[in-house]
Amino acid sequence: MIKVGIVGISGYSGYKVISLLLKHPDVRVTYISANSTQGRLDAIWPQFRGQSDLFCETYDLVKAKDLCDVIFLALPHTISMQITPDLLRAGKRVIDLSGDYRLRPASKYQQWYGAVHSDPRNLSRAVYGLPEIFRAKLSKAKLVTNPGCYPTAAILALAPLVSIHSQIVASMIIDAKSGVTGAGKKANVDLIFGEVNENFKAYKVFKHQHAPEIEQYLSHLAEGEVGVTFVAHLLPVNCGILETIYVHLKKRISLEKIHALYQQFYKTEPFVRVYPLGEQPELKNVVGTNFCDLGLTMNPKGQLLVITSVIDNLIKGAAGQAIQNMNIMYGFDEQAGLK
Amino acid sequence: MIKVGIVGISGYSGYKVISLLLKHPDVRVTYISANSTQGRLDAIWPQFRGQSDLFCETYDLVKAKDLCDVIFLALPHTISMQITPDLLRAGKRVIDLSGDYRLRPASKYQQWYGAVHSDPRNLSRAVYGLPEIFRAKLSKAKLVTNPGCYPTAAILALAPLVSIHSQIVASMIIDAKSGVTGAGKKANVDLIFGEVNENFKAYKVFKHQHAPEIEQYLSHLAEGEVGVTFVAHLLPVNCGILETIYVHLKKRISLEKIHALYQQFYKTEPFVRVYPLGEQPELKNVVGTNFCDLGLTMNPKGQLLVITSVIDNLIKGAAGQAIQNMNIMYGFDEQAGLK
Amino acid sequence: MIKVGIVGISGYSGYKVISLLLKHPDVRVTYISANSTQGRLDAIWPQFRGQSDLFCETYDLVKAKDLCDVIFLALPHTISMQITPDLLRAGKRVIDLSGDYRLRPASKYQQWYGAVHSDPRNLSRAVYGLPEIFRAKLSKAKLVTNPGCYPTAAILALAPLVSIHSQIVASMIIDAKSGVTGAGKKANVDLIFGEVNENFKAYKVFKHQHAPEIEQYLSHLAEGEVGVTFVAHLLPVNCGILETIYVHLKKRISLEKIHALYQQFYKTEPFVRVYPLGEQPELKNVVGTNFCDLGLTMNPKGQLLVITSVIDNLIKGAAGQAIQNMNIMYGFDEQAGLK
Amino acid sequence: MIKVGIVGISGYSGYKVISLLLKHPDVRVTYISANSTQGRLDAIWPQFRGQSDLFCETYDLVKAKDLCDVIFLALPHTISMQITPDLLRAGKRVIDLSGDYRLRPASKYQQWYGAVHSDPRNLSRAVYGLPEIFRAKLSKAKLVTNPGCYPTAAILALAPLVSIHSQIVASMIIDAKSGVTGAGKKANVDLIFGEVNENFKAYKVFKHQHAPEIEQYLSHLAEGEVGVTFVAHLLPVNCGILETIYVHLKKRISLEKIHALYQQFYKTEPFVRVYPLGEQPELKNVVGTNFCDLGLTMNPKGQLLVITSVIDNLIKGAAGQAIQNMNIMYGFDEQAGLK
Repeated sequence: MIKVGIVGISGYSGYKVISLLLKHPDVRVTYISANSTQGRLDAIWPQFRGQSDLFCETYDLVKAKDLCDVIFLALPHTISMQITPDLLRAGKRVIDLSGDYRLRPASKYQQWYGAVHSDPRNLSRAVYGLPEIFRAKLSKAKLVTNPGCYPTAAILALAPLVSIHSQIVASMIIDAKSGVTGAGKKANVDLIFGEVNENFKAYKVFKHQHAPEIEQYLSHLAEGEVGVTFVAHLLPVNCGILETIYVHLKKRISLEKIHALYQQFYKTEPFVRVYPLGEQPELKNVVGTNFCDLGLTMNPKGQLLVITSVIDNLIKGAAGQAIQNMNIMYGFDEQAGLK
Repeated sequence: MIKVGIVGISGYSGYKVISLLLKHPDVRVTYISANSTQGRLDAIWPQFRGQSDLFCETYDLVKAKDLCDVIFLALPHTISMQITPDLLRAGKRVIDLSGDYRLRPASKYQQWYGAVHSDPRNLSRAVYGLPEIFRAKLSKAKLVTNPGCYPTAAILALAPLVSIHSQIVASMIIDAKSGVTGAGKKANVDLIFGEVNENFKAYKVFKHQHAPEIEQYLSHLAEGEVGVTFVAHLLPVNCGILETIYVHLKKRISLEKIHALYQQFYKTEPFVRVYPLGEQPELKNVVGTNFCDLGLTMNPKGQLLVITSVIDNLIKGAAGQAIQNMNIMYGFDEQAGLK
Repeated sequence: MIKVGIVGISGYSGYKVISLLLKHPDVRVTYISANSTQGRLDAIWPQFRGQSDLFCETYDLVKAKDLCDVIFLALPHTISMQITPDLLRAGKRVIDLSGDYRLRPASKYQQWYGAVHSDPRNLSRAVYGLPEIFRAKLSKAKLVTNPGCYPTAAILALAPLVSIHSQIVASMIIDAKSGVTGAGKKANVDLIFGEVNENFKAYKVFKHQHAPEIEQYLSHLAEGEVGVTFVAHLLPVNCGILETIYVHLKKRISLEKIHALYQQFYKTEPFVRVYPLGEQPELKNVVGTNFCDLGLTMNPKGQLLVITSVIDNLIKGAAGQAIQNMNIMYGFDEQAGLK
Repeated sequence: MIKVGIVGISGYSGYKVISLLLKHPDVRVTYISANSTQGRLDAIWPQFRGQSDLFCETYDLVKAKDLCDVIFLALPHTISMQITPDLLRAGKRVIDLSGDYRLRPASKYQQWYGAVHSDPRNLSRAVYGLPEIFRAKLSKAKLVTNPGCYPTAAILALAPLVSIHSQIVASMIIDAKSGVTGAGKKANVDLIFGEVNENFKAYKVFKHQHAPEIEQYLSHLAEGEVGVTFVAHLLPVNCGILETIYVHLKKRISLEKIHALYQQFYKTEPFVRVYPLGEQPELKNVVGTNFCDLGLTMNPKGQLLVITSVIDNLIKGAAGQAIQNMNIMYGFDEQAGLK
């Protein structure tokens, strides 16, 4: 039984982290905090009425250190990197759900997040919390940088191909669609119901900070520079991401071969499901779960592979994956609290 | 051809007013203004791209006076009553979509809107813009106070009964459900998609400012004090109000008699449709139109009448009705611009 | 560890029953069946891919008897009463989610469901599975008739008042709104997305079979005849019921007194939450849970109580309550599988 | 004033055709028909209550011939081609909204629609009703085959590029997302609210009959064989299509040059709006209108053009375009009835 703290419980990711942790058999939530709001957890999120007596306070380093073994940071970017160094120095383990420790070097962070990185030392120590790729490093990690939602779906969809056949990939286009909780819980007129409902649009075209994140980790897998085209869209649903990924191949490989490669790659993974050929994953198959579901199709000419990848953006794309990472860090059953 | 101005075009009501006016055969829009935003109309509302060259400015009294015969105010309450006196003094006609001139006396306004009324003189001169009841007064009105969305649906649903049989009504309960645009276009975290979608709730129970408005005008019709119970709910749709109204009767009247009364009452009305017995109005029958549709049912014991009333909250509940009022004020075809 | 079967897994209730049972610590699902579809469970519901190897067959009495201790029936009405007698005769326990055993006598069933009751003998033995009221009888029940979704929310909202103060209630009006899964998973053009989305309507006014169910069990509680007015509406959400209930009181009682009564009545109940005065329950507070949340308000004159009651129609309104009943029948922790 | 008939008014396209025609200044609707339903128009579509006395009958060739100058067919494919020959033989003009006359030769129709074409003679005479491309031929057309919804958005998005620069296009990928009314109004369990709401999926990957339609007409424009990759997705909205189109270029052209080309190409078109660089079209900008809005972006390397194209699938994608075609056929103002 470990003691866990969560900083930033007023947003959707923080809510999902605490929802999952309160049912986790191996942890006790000992500390919760937020800056925009204080008070009883069940006053902030009435869903927890009768389920928890936790009280949410303004962040306090001393309390966080005294009360917790590991701290989840569900904070806006630029805030996490202010809090993290002190926690690490105090010997605490940190799982950061923001984008602060995902891009390297610090200059790339500055380019895409528009802020100077204040903690470059820890940036280079952070382990990217995508267990299917970095499981070995996670068990000893002190600082885990939890992947972005879009990158989770994209990297899992492309990892088998890029790891093994990177040289046959001519180009990759990721047409991504996300539910609205991905934009966070904030008072933004573009997010109000009247603007999002019955609407659909592309946004931040060629300016989205998840594009370099996808490229960075695919390049790591390919052991060479990999570029992708990435366009994000806003879906009028609460939760879920579907990415339709178009891979031009330099030479023909049979779909059956690729399918076998994917099945092999994810054979022992508890949270990745490769669909039988001819079947397509849908949002509703994964919403509320920690699964990433993958479907594979080939165009009739055999030169263009279409991969569809779906996740719940708040679970496998954020809180669920964070807990999967914690499970690995502490040697728990990797599926604990996530079934 | 009259010259029309609209103050407050950045909200949903203002948007709908200008949408309807740009297609109206008898008017020319000569002035538009907003405080939160300036610039080309089609930059504020891209829907108008290629349809209009109007430019939106900060409100300026001199321009409004010089350029317009009649001005629509689509403003938050407390702002309309600051602008109205000068416009009336300059001989302009005003159609106010806010709640500023609906409640009398001024003390009642203060009680429900939480602000001192700054223009009590004009308050007593304002004509309530519900054409089905006050058509005669509207043709000469200088200041029209456009009804609230909930009161429009409620008063039209109850007017025939209350006008003619007020003495047999024992009690009236209005269970009202409205789409989200009724709350306006503002950056409020309670209105973001993630909070409204897949959700439903009652709000402002016994504190909604539309309750006294309904009572005031029903009392006028009944020529005596009328009280109602009113509970509003937030529906996860963009547009539309449905009110389910429960009327306890002191003595039995046949549903057929009541139905005949309603048909007679609205026989010549272009925008009220009384449904045949056995049929229920639905939101989708009126959304996008200026209709109010009414359905009537009686409980088996013959003592409780259930009236269902539906409107589009932005059209018959706001902009459409404002234009209907303008049509009457200027002697245009009452349906002009509203078909 | 008991052996459990589910008949009717192709509908939404059946889906939710099996979802919950697969995570239940004390049961093993040994048999699943449906008439409209056969095959692997994860072919029928891809959500279960990798989670279960169950195979769904056409219903077979011999298999059901051999393989199960208790059988959940998630079937359309009139089908359950054909299957139930044989199962009971074989000593099996049955939890029926249909309406077949809810109304008494058989003639009332015929009146509201439009079919002759083929099993009146067991009708009188069925225990109504609302644990908060009938817990004592449930532990020995052989046949549990699981309550309707609307009646669950209504009876829990009114039980404290009707049980203790039935003589002061003058009238009760239940304005009920339900998500679409309440109508089942069937190919009905009135249920397609284009007809339900952005729409809202009342339906089956004074003809809904849940009205006599509510009256029957409230009358039982009141030890005297109780009548209610009940109007159902279709909400454009997947899951959730909110009922706004208007209770005219014959004499004034303070809201504080009523609130204390409700808190006392449900003090030890794990799944009913009475809100502090001034707070309103919302769908999203209960969707995905087995809770029924209750809010209380009084009109300013102190004669009209407004109760808001929310549940998830598929959980507390169907599958969750069925499992709560099973837990009581077998002496498991009442919250097992429902946390 | 011409006399117009509509066959197939019970579906969404037929509904939209009649909605628009009833407001059209130059036509009189003289005949309506449907096979699945008969009776007063306002009993079939209550939206028309009080607006029309039209009566819908089973299709009758003699009546259609006697009463109409032009007939709109809003029918499922394979039905249109049974009705069309007789109407043409009688000298009537036909605007067919189905897919029956879009693909050539007849063998291609058979390949994609799975039925033998029964009217190949007229197939070769049909004019493709995309006015921006085929306006000249439309004025004399006897049989207009109205384009599919996806092809309308795709061809308008690609026509300027393909007409003028087809040789520099290396590949085109069309990632298309459509609202649910595109699937028609039918009792299909995959279309019910509970299956579509909060969901998103790709469907008919590499099997959609609109792919060869896009290729056929782009090839015509390019004066050479053009292939596209097309993947359709189902959006949880009632109306609207957004297509994100990825065009790999063989050599760099500046975005400004391409933008200028598009502006020039559509300079005089009333219903195509090319957005300023830096702005993205959204569904809500076009829903309820006959516009096709286009946005252009280039990747930083200058080799991949991203075009976003939005239409209302029932208006520019079906009924509105059909009326635009009728306007051209009869020399009416092209925007009549569509403003």
